[in-house]
Amino acid sequence: MKRIGIIAKTDKAQTVEVSKELIPWLKGRGIEPVIDEGLGALLGISGCCPMNQIASKCNMLLVLGGDGTLLAAARLVGATGIPILGVNLGSLGFLTEITIHELYPAMEKVLKGEYETEERVMLSARVIRDRIEISGYEVLNDVFVSRGSTARIVDLETKINGDYVTTYKADGLIVSTPTGSTAYSLSAGGPIIYPSLHAFALTPICPHTLAQRPVIVSDDSVITISILSKEDILITHDGIAGPALHYGDIVEVKKADAVIHLIKSPYRNYYEVLRKKLKWGER
Amino acid sequence: MKRIGIIAKTDKAQTVEVSKELIPWLKGRGIEPVIDEGLGALLGISGCCPMNQIASKCNMLLVLGGDGTLLAAARLVGATGIPILGVNLGSLGFLTEITIHELYPAMEKVLKGEYETEERVMLSARVIRDRIEISGYEVLNDVFVSRGSTARIVDLETKINGDYVTTYKADGLIVSTPTGSTAYSLSAGGPIIYPSLHAFALTPICPHTLAQRPVIVSDDSVITISILSKEDILITHDGIAGPALHYGDIVEVKKADAVIHLIKSPYRNYYEVLRKKLKWGER
Amino acid sequence: MKRIGIIAKTDKAQTVEVSKELIPWLKGRGIEPVIDEGLGALLGISGCCPMNQIASKCNMLLVLGGDGTLLAAARLVGATGIPILGVNLGSLGFLTEITIHELYPAMEKVLKGEYETEERVMLSARVIRDRIEISGYEVLNDVFVSRGSTARIVDLETKINGDYVTTYKADGLIVSTPTGSTAYSLSAGGPIIYPSLHAFALTPICPHTLAQRPVIVSDDSVITISILSKEDILITHDGIAGPALHYGDIVEVKKADAVIHLIKSPYRNYYEVLRKKLKWGER
Amino acid sequence: MKRIGIIAKTDKAQTVEVSKELIPWLKGRGIEPVIDEGLGALLGISGCCPMNQIASKCNMLLVLGGDGTLLAAARLVGATGIPILGVNLGSLGFLTEITIHELYPAMEKVLKGEYETEERVMLSARVIRDRIEISGYEVLNDVFVSRGSTARIVDLETKINGDYVTTYKADGLIVSTPTGSTAYSLSAGGPIIYPSLHAFALTPICPHTLAQRPVIVSDDSVITISILSKEDILITHDGIAGPALHYGDIVEVKKADAVIHLIKSPYRNYYEVLRKKLKWGER
Repeated sequence: MKRIGIIAKTDKAQTVEVSKELIPWLKGRGIEPVIDEGLGALLGISGCCPMNQIASKCNMLLVLGGDGTLLAAARLVGATGIPILGVNLGSLGFLTEITIHELYPAMEKVLKGEYETEERVMLSARVIRDRIEISGYEVLNDVFVSRGSTARIVDLETKINGDYVTTYKADGLIVSTPTGSTAYSLSAGGPIIYPSLHAFALTPICPHTLAQRPVIVSDDSVITISILSKEDILITHDGIAGPALHYGDIVEVKKADAVIHLIKSPYRNYYEVLRKKLKWGER
Repeated sequence: MKRIGIIAKTDKAQTVEVSKELIPWLKGRGIEPVIDEGLGALLGISGCCPMNQIASKCNMLLVLGGDGTLLAAARLVGATGIPILGVNLGSLGFLTEITIHELYPAMEKVLKGEYETEERVMLSARVIRDRIEISGYEVLNDVFVSRGSTARIVDLETKINGDYVTTYKADGLIVSTPTGSTAYSLSAGGPIIYPSLHAFALTPICPHTLAQRPVIVSDDSVITISILSKEDILITHDGIAGPALHYGDIVEVKKADAVIHLIKSPYRNYYEVLRKKLKWGER
Repeated sequence: MKRIGIIAKTDKAQTVEVSKELIPWLKGRGIEPVIDEGLGALLGISGCCPMNQIASKCNMLLVLGGDGTLLAAARLVGATGIPILGVNLGSLGFLTEITIHELYPAMEKVLKGEYETEERVMLSARVIRDRIEISGYEVLNDVFVSRGSTARIVDLETKINGDYVTTYKADGLIVSTPTGSTAYSLSAGGPIIYPSLHAFALTPICPHTLAQRPVIVSDDSVITISILSKEDILITHDGIAGPALHYGDIVEVKKADAVIHLIKSPYRNYYEVLRKKLKWGER
Repeated sequence: MKRIGIIAKTDKAQTVEVSKELIPWLKGRGIEPVIDEGLGALLGISGCCPMNQIASKCNMLLVLGGDGTLLAAARLVGATGIPILGVNLGSLGFLTEITIHELYPAMEKVLKGEYETEERVMLSARVIRDRIEISGYEVLNDVFVSRGSTARIVDLETKINGDYVTTYKADGLIVSTPTGSTAYSLSAGGPIIYPSLHAFALTPICPHTLAQRPVIVSDDSVITISILSKEDILITHDGIAGPALHYGDIVEVKKADAVIHLIKSPYRNYYEVLRKKLKWGER
C-alpha cells in the first residue's frame, strides 16, 4: 500500500475538511496519496491525477462520499482489480459501509494488512443495432431498459442463454447484480441478494402481467433484450443514460470480465448494513 | 334513443364488417346513427360528425373497440352525461364488457330501456405554474406524474386537502379513479377498487421507501403534487401527455364535475370481468 | 365531561406512575374518574368498575396503553358512542396518537371542549353453521379467516352482496376496516385507507393466484365467506379467536351498527402518524 | 434401465388406465417394472414393493401424478441418486413437466439414453431442543416455520452462517430451494429462482416490517431460526408437519447431502413451463 488513490464527492461540505486531515495523515505513514483532479481542484492542489488514470497509479482506492461516488469509481477501477475502501461522508451506504468516524481506525487496519476483500461482480451491457455494437458499458449495480418520455408500456422480448423467457409489457426491465439488488431493483419488487452470490436478478418494472415476478438466474447467463416498441426507449447504466434505443435494437447483458474488490468493513457485516439502511427495527 | 352515436377503433380489422351490419340494423329500428368522422372515412360515408360534436347530437354513445377507445370517447362525452355502451371488438375489457357476440341482444335490451347505468367518476387535473393554470384535463382512469427521459427518481411533495402527506422519491405517482384501479395503478401495486366507491388511489411507482404503500382517500379530496425535481417531468392523462413539468409546478387533482354513465352489461357483473381479465382461475 | 372512564394496559411499567398522577389531576378539576377494575387492582383501589360496565357509567373514556388496549376498549364502548381518547404509553400508535408527554395539555383541551372526534366504522362478523348463528363479534380492525394448525391452503368462496367474487386458495382472507388497514392487512399487501373513507378491504393472505390483489369495496357491502376446506379453520376478531370453522360454515361480515368516536390528536394529523409509524423518512 | 420403479397418485381416475397400458409397454421392451405397493393395490397386483424400498430396487423412477406426488417420491429417492421422470396426469406441473400425451415418446427417448438430467438441491431441516435433535427431514421445495392455531405474529431470530440477520415478526418464514421458489414462497412474495442456481430464498410471510423483503443466499449457507415466541409454532416440510415448536427451539436448515436428478422434458424448457403455469400471456 505505497500509493493510495483518493476520489471524493466534491459537492459535499465535509470533503475539504476530511481530505485536509487525511492527506497529511497518509503522508505521515509513508503513503503517497494520488489525488483525483476533481478533488485537487477543490483543495487547491495542482498536478493531480485525471480520474480515468488514477486506478493504474495506485495500489488501493479510497472513496469518500456516498454509494454514487463509489459506483463511479468502480467503473474506472474495474480492470485493474485494486481494492476499494468506501467511506461514507453521510451516515452509511450499502457500498460505503465505513462511517466517517471509523475512517482512521479502519485505515490503520488496512495499512497493517488486516482486511478482507469481497468480490463484487459487474455487468457488461452492449447495445447491438443492425449487427453493430453501438454502445458498451460496465456497471456495478444495474442496467435497465425502460420507457422514455412518451410511451408507458414497452415490449421487451427477453431471452436467457438463447431461450425465450417472455415478452415483458411493462415500464421496463432491470438486470441487476447482487450489489444492485438493494438499489432500484428493490424498489421495483426484487429480492435482496447476498453480495457474493453468483446470480443476477431480472426485475420487470410495473409489468402488465401481475404474475411476472422477478427471476433470479446464474451470473453465467447471457441475457438478451430485444426492443419491440416503436418509440424511443431508454437504457441506463448505474444511472448513466446510453443511446436512445429503437425497434429492433438488442441489449446483451452478461457478467463483465472485471470484478470489483471491495474492502469489507471490520465493524459490521452485510446484514447489519441491511438492517440499518432498510430500517429493520420495528415497523 | 332516437339518435345513437357510433365511435369505433378504426385500425381494427373487424370494425368495417361490424359497422356495415350495425348501421342498417339500427336504421331498421328507426334509430338514426350519428357516425364519427373517423369511422365514416373508413366506411366511405361522407357528411359524418366530428368526434368532439358527436355527444351533443345523440342520446347515447356506442363505442366499438377496446378500453382505450372508450377512454377517448369518455373525454368527449363527459359533460353531456349521455349513456355509453362499450362493445369490445377483441375479447373483453374492463370498460367494454360486452363482447361482439352480445352486441345485438344487448342492443335489443337497451332499445327496450332494459338496462342499468353505473356512474363512473372522472378526475380533473390542472397544472399550475407561477399561479397560472397551464393545462387542464379530465380523465376516466388516471393521471400520473413521473420521471421523463433522464432522471430516475423524482421528488413529489404531496398534500391531501392541504395536509402534507409525504415527499415521494419514486419513479412517479399515479392518482387513479376506481375505474383506473385495474389499469396502471394495479401494475404499480395498487388495489382493485369497486367502480362505484367514492375513492381515489394514490399509488407511488417504485418508491425508494418500501413502506410507502398505496393510499386510498375519499373522492372529495383535493390532491396537490408539487414538483421538487429539477429535470423535466412528465404528466400523463389516460395516456395523453400534458406539458413538460418543471421545478415548482403544482399538479392539482380532484373529482371532475362530469361523471360518465356506463351502461352495464346484462350478461356479467364486475367480478366476472375481474376474474376473466385477471385470470383468476388456478395459478 | 363529569365522569371519565380510565382503562389501562396493566402490564406496562409506566401505568401506575401515570395513573397516580392522573387521578388526582382529574379530581382537582371536578372530574370523577371511573376506574377499571384491572387498573384498580394494580393501584390498590377497591370498588372499581368492571370493564364491561365502564362505558355506561361515564361521558368519555381515556385509554392508557397501546393500540391493542384501545381495540379492547372499543369493543366495550361500541354501542354507547362515548368519545375515546387514546394515550400511548410507549411512543405513538395508529389509534393512540397522543404521547404520554401530551397527556395533560391534550386533556386540558378536551375538558374545555376543544376537540374533534372522528367516526371509525366497526365490522360485525357472524358465523353461521347449518343456518344457526354460532358466534358474533364486533371489531374495529379486522376479521380474518385462515388456515389453522394443519393445512396450508384454504378454499374460501367469497361473495359480496350475493355476487360471487372468487374462491380464494390462500393462507386466508382478511376483511379490514380503514382503521385496520394499517394493521395485518398492510403486512399482507393491502393499501392504506384513510380512516373516514366508507370502505372495507378484502386482502387475501398469500393467495395461490398471484393476480388476486386486495379488493376495496363500500362499507355498505355484505361479505360472505363460505368455508370449502375440510380441515379446521380459524376465525380471528381483532386478534381474538372465534370458534373453529368447518366445511360449509359461512362467515358474514358487514358494518356494525355501532361506530367509535375517537378524539383526534390536536398535535398531529393522520399523515404525520403514518409517516412516523411507517418510517417514511428516507429508505 | 433394466428396472424402472413406478409411483403413482392413487386417487386420480386416470392412474389405473395409464398404468395398465404402461406396464405391458415396459415389459414388451424388456424392462422390469417395480411397482409401488399403493399402486399395486389399486391395480390388484400382489407382491409389489413398499414405497420406501423402491428406489434401491430400480435404475430409474417414473412418477405419475402431480408435483405433490413427485415431492413425496423425491424424499424416498434422495440418497440413491437414481433419475426421476415426472409425468403429469393433469395438465403440467413445475416438476412433472411431461404431459400424459408425451409419456410414450418421452419414454422412448429415455430408454435410448437420449435424455438430460438436472440436479435439484434438497434442504435438510433439523429441529434442536435443549441441544438434542428432535426431528430431521429432507425436502425438495421448502421448510417453513409459522404461527400455529393461536398466535398471529411469531418472533423468529434468524442467523445465516452464525451472523445475525434479523428477528422476523411475521406470520412465519419460508426457506425455499430454487425448486420451491415457484411454490409457497412465490405466494408470499418471493422471486422465481432458476432451478440450477446454487441459492436458497428466505421469504418472510406477512412481515410486520414492510421492508423485510425476501433474501437470497448461497446454498452453502447454514440458516438457523430460533423460536422466540411462547405459543406453539408449526414447522412444515414440503407440506408435512413436524413437531410442535416451543420457545427456545432452534431450526437448522442447510443443503441436504442428497440431490435429486430430474429428467428434463425433451419438449419444453423451464421458461415455457413458467409461462404456462403462471399464465404469462396477456394480463
